[in-house]
This record gives sequence, C-alpha cells and structure tokens, in this order.
Amino acid sequence: MMAFSGWGYPGSAFDASDKPALWELIHRKMGCGPADRAPPAEFAAIQVPEPRADAGSVAALRALLGGEHVALDRETRLLHGMGKSYRDLLRARAGRPGRVPDVVVFPESTVQVADIVSLARARKFAIIPFGGGTNIVGGVEPSPALAAPVVTVSLRRMNRLVSLDEVSGTATIEAGALGPEIEQALNGRGYTLGHFPDSFLHSTLGGWLATRSAGMQSDARGKIEDMVVSLKIVTPVGMLATRVAARSATGPDLNQIVVGSEGTVGIITEATMTVHRRGVQAYHGVLMPDFRSGVELMRRCSREDSAPSTMRLSNAEETELGLTLKPPGGPGARAFKAMVKAYLRRVRGFNLGEACLLILGWEGSAGDVGRRRARSLAIARGLNGFSLGESAGNAWFDRKYDYPLLRDLVMEHGGMVDVTEATVTWRDAMATYERVHGAMHRELCREAFPGYVGCHLSHAYETGVCIYFTFAAARAKGAEMEQYLRAKALSVELLLGAGASLSHHHSIGYEHLPWMEDYVGPAGMAALRGLKAALDPGNICNPGKLLPSAESALGQYWPGYPAGVGAGRAP
Amino acid sequence: MMAFSGWGYPGSAFDASDKPALWELIHRKMGCGPADRAPPAEFAAIQVPEPRADAGSVAALRALLGGEHVALDRETRLLHGMGKSYRDLLRARAGRPGRVPDVVVFPESTVQVADIVSLARARKFAIIPFGGGTNIVGGVEPSPALAAPVVTVSLRRMNRLVSLDEVSGTATIEAGALGPEIEQALNGRGYTLGHFPDSFLHSTLGGWLATRSAGMQSDARGKIEDMVVSLKIVTPVGMLATRVAARSATGPDLNQIVVGSEGTVGIITEATMTVHRRGVQAYHGVLMPDFRSGVELMRRCSREDSAPSTMRLSNAEETELGLTLKPPGGPGARAFKAMVKAYLRRVRGFNLGEACLLILGWEGSAGDVGRRRARSLAIARGLNGFSLGESAGNAWFDRKYDYPLLRDLVMEHGGMVDVTEATVTWRDAMATYERVHGAMHRELCREAFPGYVGCHLSHAYETGVCIYFTFAAARAKGAEMEQYLRAKALSVELLLGAGASLSHHHSIGYEHLPWMEDYVGPAGMAALRGLKAALDPGNICNPGKLLPSAESALGQYWPGYPAGVGAGRAP
Repeated sequence: MMAFSGWGYPGSAFDASDKPALWELIHRKMGCGPADRAPPAEFAAIQVPEPRADAGSVAALRALLGGEHVALDRETRLLHGMGKSYRDLLRARAGRPGRVPDVVVFPESTVQVADIVSLARARKFAIIPFGGGTNIVGGVEPSPALAAPVVTVSLRRMNRLVSLDEVSGTATIEAGALGPEIEQALNGRGYTLGHFPDSFLHSTLGGWLATRSAGMQSDARGKIEDMVVSLKIVTPVGMLATRVAARSATGPDLNQIVVGSEGTVGIITEATMTVHRRGVQAYHGVLMPDFRSGVELMRRCSREDSAPSTMRLSNAEETELGLTLKPPGGPGARAFKAMVKAYLRRVRGFNLGEACLLILGWEGSAGDVGRRRARSLAIARGLNGFSLGESAGNAWFDRKYDYPLLRDLVMEHGGMVDVTEATVTWRDAMATYERVHGAMHRELCREAFPGYVGCHLSHAYETGVCIYFTFAAARAKGAEMEQYLRAKALSVELLLGAGASLSHHHSIGYEHLPWMEDYVGPAGMAALRGLKAALDPGNICNPGKLLPSAESALGQYWPGYPAGVGAGRAP
Repeated sequence: MMAFSGWGYPGSAFDASDKPALWELIHRKMGCGPADRAPPAEFAAIQVPEPRADAGSVAALRALLGGEHVALDRETRLLHGMGKSYRDLLRARAGRPGRVPDVVVFPESTVQVADIVSLARARKFAIIPFGGGTNIVGGVEPSPALAAPVVTVSLRRMNRLVSLDEVSGTATIEAGALGPEIEQALNGRGYTLGHFPDSFLHSTLGGWLATRSAGMQSDARGKIEDMVVSLKIVTPVGMLATRVAARSATGPDLNQIVVGSEGTVGIITEATMTVHRRGVQAYHGVLMPDFRSGVELMRRCSREDSAPSTMRLSNAEETELGLTLKPPGGPGARAFKAMVKAYLRRVRGFNLGEACLLILGWEGSAGDVGRRRARSLAIARGLNGFSLGESAGNAWFDRKYDYPLLRDLVMEHGGMVDVTEATVTWRDAMATYERVHGAMHRELCREAFPGYVGCHLSHAYETGVCIYFTFAAARAKGAEMEQYLRAKALSVELLLGAGASLSHHHSIGYEHLPWMEDYVGPAGMAALRGLKAALDPGNICNPGKLLPSAESALGQYWPGYPAGVGAGRAP
C-alpha cells in the first residue's frame, strides 16, 4: 500500500538535497523554502469511528472470503478511505480523513466478487472498488452523505495474467494487477501492454479501465479504452462479459459503456487487452523556440503515418522546472551549457525565456523507430527546434514517475499544488493555453510571488490533444481548502469556457461533478442515469460518484454548489 | 432513390452479356442459366393500404415542413418501406412489400427534426430515420406489429458540409449526405473522409453511424465509430450534442452509445468527423497459394506499423468468381495466362484450385504508400504469394461497387443469394472459415449443384478480422423464404458457435434479433434496455429493432422463433 499522507510506498521521498536550483525556483514562484515545514499528523493518532457494518453482514463476508480477507481494523480502513488528490492529501496531513469504509474485503476471483455484490444487494450496503488508490478525483472515497455501511472491495489479490493468445495478440488479465505486475508477466513472454500512465507503479488495470486512463505511449497505442478487447464486470443485475471481438455492429458498444463507469455500475474483474511484441524504445529531447512552435510540431506529427509513440511539450515554466531537477554540473558542463545558450540566442534566434522542452519517444521495431525518429526530428528542424539528443529524453524518462513525490515535497514545505487536464482541438490549443496560463497566474499571485503554472501537452490525436496544467502557490494558512477550491474551479471553468472537455484521463469522481450535468447535457444525463438505474437499481455501487445525486454530498465537497461554482467563470 | 426491387438507380444492371465464364460458374454451382427468368412484379401494380396517419398529425407535419415535404403517395411510401436485403428483394419482387410507412417526411434541419420528434412524442406516432435505403438487416422497415402510425424521416435534404476545421482536421457534415456528396464536398477542399463501404454510392453518413459501418480503407482509418469526433442526435427527451473532443474521461462514451443505435433512441442529424488531406492510392493483387497463407499474411500485416489501408482476401470460390467477371481476352492473352499458370504450378508449387486472390491497397503520401507497399509485398513473397500487379488491384477497385448488381442478376435468373459477416480473432479465423464453408455447402447443395459459398476476410485489426460469407443456390420454388431463413440462421449460428461476433458492420435490425439476447447476455440487455427507456420512454423510435420486443414481430420475420431458430446450430 502507498503511504497514507503522500505518494509512493512509505519512506519514499523526492531527494531535493542536491538541487539548489529547485529550491530557488520554488521560493521565487511561491515564497516557500526548505526551512518552512508543515509535517503531517501522526498516522497512529488518527481516529476513525467504529465500523457501521452489522454483525450479520460481516459474518457473511467472512464466510464468503475467509476471515483474513475481511478487514475492519483502523489502519486498513484509513488506507482505503481516500485517493491521492491535493484535497485528499490536505485532509490526510491534517489528520481529518473524512468518512472511511466500514469494511475492506479482498476477494480472489470473479466468483467471490459476484458473491460480494449479491450480498451487498441483499443487505443493502454500498460497495466501492479499490485498485492501487492513486485516484485523484475522489473516486474511491465513501460519501459522508451515505447512511448505508460501505464495503470497499480491494482487487489487489486478483493480479494474475490469466492467459495470453499470441496468435491474436491479446492477454486476459485480472483487474487488480498493478502496472509493474502486468509488464513483468507479459515481458517474460516477450510482450508488453504498453500502458504507462504517470501512476503506473501504483495503479491497476481495473482502475485504468474504470477511469479511462492514458499512458505515455498513447500517441501510438491510444488510451486504455482503445486497448480493451473485452471485459468482465460484476453488476448488481448480474455479470456482464463482453465478447472478444476487435469491432462489432451489435448496438451501442458495451465496452465503452463500462470503461469510464468509475465503479458506479459494478466491479470490473478482468479484461482482455491488445498486447504487442516488445520492441526497442528511444526518447529524445528537443528545445522548441516557443510553445506555439511546439504545438505546431505536435499537430503535424499527429497527422503523420510515422507519428512518434510519445510527444510531450512543456511550457517555458515547466521547462524551467525540469532544468532545476538536474544536479548542477562541474565547471566544464557549465561552460558547455553557456556556449549552447549563446548559440541558441545568436545563431538560432531563441529567446531562452520562452524556449520549451519537447520530449519525443518512439517504440517498435528498430527499423521503424529509426525511420519515425528521423521523420519527427526533420519536422522539428523545420520549425527551428534544437535537438538535445537522447540524454535529455532519457533524463525525462528516468524521472517520469517522480513528479507526485515532488508534490509531496512542496506540500511538506507549505505549498499548494494541483493539476487540471482536458482535451482541446488543435485549433483551440494555443489560445486555450494562453488564456488559462494568464488567468491562473492572476489567481495564484500572492504579493511578490507569482505562483507556478506549468503546462504540458501530451496524448496527441489527429484532431486534438490533452492540455495539462500544474498550478502551485504557497498555502493560504487557515483557508487552505477555500484557496484550492477557488483555483481548481477557475481552471476547470476556463477550460470548459474554451470548449475543452471536462477531463481527458483523470475522470469525474467528486472532483469534476459540479460541471458534469452542464457538460453532458440533459439528454446525455438521461442516458447515463438510465444506464446506472438499469445496472444498479439499488444504487449500491460507488454511490454519488460520476453522476450528481443526493449521495454526492456536493455541498460538502464544493461549498456553495451549485451557486458558488461557476461564479469564477472568466469572461 | 434506388430502384424498388433491386440495387442502384432505376435502369442500372450488371452487364453479363460479355462474360460467358460467369454464366458457366453460376450454372455449375446453382443450376441457373441465362434462360431462367423470374422477373419482378410490376411496380405500378403494387398496392399499399391507405395511410393510418390521422389528419391532425398530417396537418401538423405540413405546417412544420411545408406541404411539399410531407409525402403520403403510394410510390414514396413504397420506396421508403424496405431496405435491400435478400429478404427485402424477395418480397419486393413478389409485389408483397409488407408494411410501409404511413407518411414520409423530408426535414431540412436539426430544428425541423426536433419538431418532428416532439410531434411524434405528443401524438404517439412512430418515427424511422431513412438515409439511402441500403440497409440489409430490416432496419428501415416499419414493424407490422405496430398499431401506431409510422412516419419515416428521410434525411436526404440534410446533405451539406456544415464546416471544415483544417487546423484540427475535422469536418461537420449533415447526416443525410450520401457518400459521393461527402467526398465531392471535401475533395474540393483537398480533403477526404476516407469511408468507402460497399454501399458508398447510395448510403449516408447518418446510416453509417447508426449501423457502425465499415469502409474498405478501414485497416488504416478504422470503422465509422473510429472516425467520429462528436455528433448530434435528436432524442424524444431532447437533443444530445456530444463534445468535440478527441478523447475524454467523463464517464461512458456517449458517442459510442449513439453509434450503432439504429434509430432506436432518436435521429442522428449531424456529426463532426476526422478528415484527412487527400493522398495517392495504389491497389495491388497478389495470388496466395491458399486461404491459410493469405490469413497469415493479413495477420502479420495487421501487426505492422506499415500496415496497408486495405486488405481483402478471397477464398478460392470467390477468387474463381472474380476471374469470371473479366471478359475473355484474345489468343495472346490466353497463351500468357496459360504460361503463368504453368509457372505457378511447376515452379511455385501452387495447386491452382486452392489459390486465393488478395487485394492490398495503400493510401497516403506518395512516400508512405511506396514504403508500405514494399513492406507488404515483401511479407507476401515470404509466404509464397505471387504478385499480379496493379492491374489486378485496379480491376477489383473498379468493380467494387458492382456486386449488389450481380446479386440482382442472380435473383433475376432464379437464384437465392445472401451474406453473413462477423468478427473473429486471428486465432479462430482459419478454423471458423473451414467449418462455416463446409457446413454451408452441405446446406445449399441441391442434387448435382453444390451451391456457392464465397468468403472474404477484410477489415483487419491487430487482434482479429471480419469474415464475410456470400452464399447462393437456386431458389427453392414455393419455399423461397424458408430456404433462405434456414441458410441464414445456420450461417449465423455457426459463426456464433465458433466464438465470432453477431455482426461486424451490418448491424442487427430484425435480421439478427433472434440471437441478440443470447449474444449480449442479461446484464448487457439490461443496460441497452435501460438506455432505450431513458432516451425513448414512449418507444416511438424505430420500435422493435435492435432490442427484441413485442414490436419486433419476430414470429413473422423468423417463424418459429425462438424454438425454431437455434435448431440448426451445428454440433
């Protein structure tokens, strides 16, 4: 299990001791420094109420699963009570986790999950599926408005590779398998799933499917919904097992109804996924003169048959942050760097304060990787991009899973930091970036400290791209949650106002609920509510998530909803 | 409008006069010849009952649309009463079309469609959307079990290119636009949608979306559901307009709920689609030693980054049919052909009776087409494929839209001919082919005539492929429909029994309804019925289609259902 009040396994931390430039940047942007310390509450001291579950239900669960797989202890309940959003960590660090599940159970098979769901329906307790606990939209948290007992169903014992069909290129995998477990099992047979979200180390196949996850090679492989061939989900009205068909014309796509359902219609227990022979990989860094030229490069590459597998363009602020994560080199390295800078300024006409790092990655056969790399880099050169070579690409690759630990560091030293992401069309990408970037700085600015508004574009498609903002500032002492809610709501509303989607890969949970009805519209909501009612007539599956309802406790999560939310919508 | 009792515009016909080998094949397989004639009933003599629509509804429709866009005449109602399946044409040719719509209306805008749907809800008449009328699963036919009046809504006036976003590579197109209208509008701006189903000349964007259509370049572009970015559908509970986002994580995918809904939850009025700059195209024919090696070639190519845009493998019977469609050449051509045959037999070890034609096509930039072509042909050579060059590819390309006219010719001369298609995994493709091919021949064989069972694989994906059977025999006089139903049911059940899907791109309509509940399962049906009830609470949208219900009149379309259907399921 991950730590209670931070990312990663207990004891993991971001090593900032050898990165003076990082501290300099944090202080310049936010006013926080290494001396500011805001340590979390002691885990052992956090109290939780007695479980609400009745003795009969607990006995029945123990009879189904064995006593050792039914947990009622304080620690297990706390560790399964929240995900890892800023809001979650703020509450965890304060020692006020909110409602936690009454029971946590650990089934080992689809049959056991079906038994749990039947029991839940008969005894009217709520069930919340739990994978790795990395959710950052409140997806795994029991609603405080819920009168019924809550049983969280951890899929972590269901982590097997069930079968591999090498002829068809598919693997059937249990939903509780973590990213590294999946890759280890497949790599041993020469295959890869190729899904590497930022949460890869700690998240599961079932969680990816439930939230429409995106991995860093999505430009080649698509999002998780593009990789799924079929799946099994246990719903309160029975098991739905979709057919193993690449495509079909048999009505609405049931896979695409289940994917993204966030636990609200049942528990996904396994899926058959497209897998590939492992190939070679190469990553490359390119410095673009500005964000606009980087956007144009990504757009052009996304139209090519030879598109990269990964493209990730950082704005100037995120580029600067990335540079601070490298320990300072010796005098020789500094002299070389100065020479390169002078070249870029004088010969290539760069304004270095505007330069943007672009990571390009390719995965496949050696021949294909070589060809596609040459093609992408030629396009980059045509747009005055400066190649930083493989070392810059590999440096990014090596630290790609560390950013959540950097968030912990910032929180530990008095900072607020959160993210907002959405999909924009290529046409709208640049204007949306400029509008949100400027408005978020105005929102975050505190006296001499402008705040941090990093942005990257990643996950490119032919018609658009994911735009991802990371915003940070010093915490407003005594008004931490208000400060956060205001900034988060503003970022979402700026994106929606610019025609972007409500989320590209983080999903809805509680965090994006205030905008869901507006976003989907009345007929769309009728469809989604109709689906929910048909599959979960007793409303026992993750009540209150995804679709606003009485159980959503929106007044608690978004004080003033609906009147307050929306007030920040920029002109 | 297409002709009443056949494919294509009135007067179009397949020219068989210069193809003696075609007649020879038809006679050898089915016992039919040019002298057998079974002309259709005279169109002018076919009677239809008075329209059931009440005067108030008709007056209201006329007020909404203008009198000239509300048709109650015999001819218009007949022409909008059926699609073009064998079952449809059998009834059309016999002059017994079954129930036809009571009114046919021609709206010109989404607003007018919304007005029609509101009126339908208030006055309780049923509505059926109608595009080009090419449906072959009974999708546009009013149910005879329906007491309510039926208003068919033709989208044919809504055929405009609304807008083109060249930066994002999307086009917004009205749902009633025919294939050639779409391509003409886009080609004029340098773009293409790239969706070319066999029905291309006569089918519409809305019909493609409603049925999950697949075009011949699907290996590169995907099916229509892969090309849609957003859409508008008018449902009885309001308009659902999905967002223009390449991907999102905002719950179940509403696009994928609407696509494939076959008119049962509303009327699709427009869609924003991914479009591409027009490139060059090349088609090539390859002769493979047998079906198995062709399957292996397609499977390998589907895993390549350099996959062709089109792959279509014919079995030996379909390959033989294809050869008969070329008028016989002079003595020189015949001598050259004999030489090639001798080479294939002696040097390459072909058994010519087993050889299978494979069409490969590439579309894109000239450089990409060249590179991908070289790669595909190298794989073909490695599997002992013999290149027939571009002329064989172009010959197929030139006649690709003519096969429905060949069906008309066979029907005119006393034959039964229909098709069945499904998706199989690569692992199952060969065994499924052999099983269905053998069993269908046993079913169709009449005395000395073995029947015709052509098969092709087309629409390849990484994990599987569409398998498409065309089966034909002489009509069983006096038991035409029974003969057809038996053969059709057998083919479907053989495919389902082999783990294939119920349809890859033809959809469900009435034709695949008997198997829908089994195929989707109880929880899947609960989801689909929940959606239907939520969006169409009055059941006014194409009642009885897609989801079995009292309005499906299954006893009429599938006599003996459910007991009879399933009896043919092979061991």
